[in-house]
Amino acid sequence: MSGRCAACKYVRRRCPSDCILSPYFPSNDPQRFTSVHRIYGASNVAKMLQELLPHLRVEAAETLCYEAQCRIQDPIYGCVGVISQLHQQIQDTECQLAKTRAEIALMNSYGQEPPQAQVDQQI
Amino acid sequence: MSGRCAACKYVRRRCPSDCILSPYFPSNDPQRFTSVHRIYGASNVAKMLQELLPHLRVEAAETLCYEAQCRIQDPIYGCVGVISQLHQQIQDTECQLAKTRAEIALMNSYGQEPPQAQVDQQI
Repeated sequence: MSGRCAACKYVRRRCPSDCILSPYFPSNDPQRFTSVHRIYGASNVAKMLQELLPHLRVEAAETLCYEAQCRIQDPIYGCVGVISQLHQQIQDTECQLAKTRAEIALMNSYGQEPPQAQVDQQI
Repeated sequence: MSGRCAACKYVRRRCPSDCILSPYFPSNDPQRFTSVHRIYGASNVAKMLQELLPHLRVEAAETLCYEAQCRIQDPIYGCVGVISQLHQQIQDTECQLAKTRAEIALMNSYGQEPPQAQVDQQI
């Protein structure tokens, strides 16, 4: 019974030595498996990992876990909610950048006036 | 046979009048259903929609489709790849903003010098 991965423990089966899920879902972190199982189902996760070359599976398992947790926390938007927030943040930063560039353009336009006029403005 | 939604058509069953998938997976867009079915499985999609209030299901179906399509296009990173790109874009824009603000600070520091010194610098 010991040594089973979180997936095999969950479905109460023997964990084969070549278990596709075992390296990515250790028994000491059952929540990690529960999340992907709830959203994708164990067989779909296994299928998605199986379709990848072994060295690419760690990252795939990691991103599947992240997306599953996002979907559990936000059942309507999932991690598309995170994408929307980031788009908003980009828009805000680009807006600040445009304002700051406009400020520079204004300062430069003062700088292009004849020196005396600029001195007068500052007095 | 006609009038079945894409999900019921796919699994070759009668589409009941209260089909949970029917409003979000019309038969004229079979690819939309195929994507979510491939990633989540039809029963998981139905379960996730069922758990939401009816008026929230359109958005949930939309974001599930988006995430499924991202995962099909990028089987390693899914839409976490999009999130990484957006983080990079934010970092780039914030970097540009910091440089532009530093430029303003430098221009202001010239502006704070006595007027004659500023005029000398410009000549």
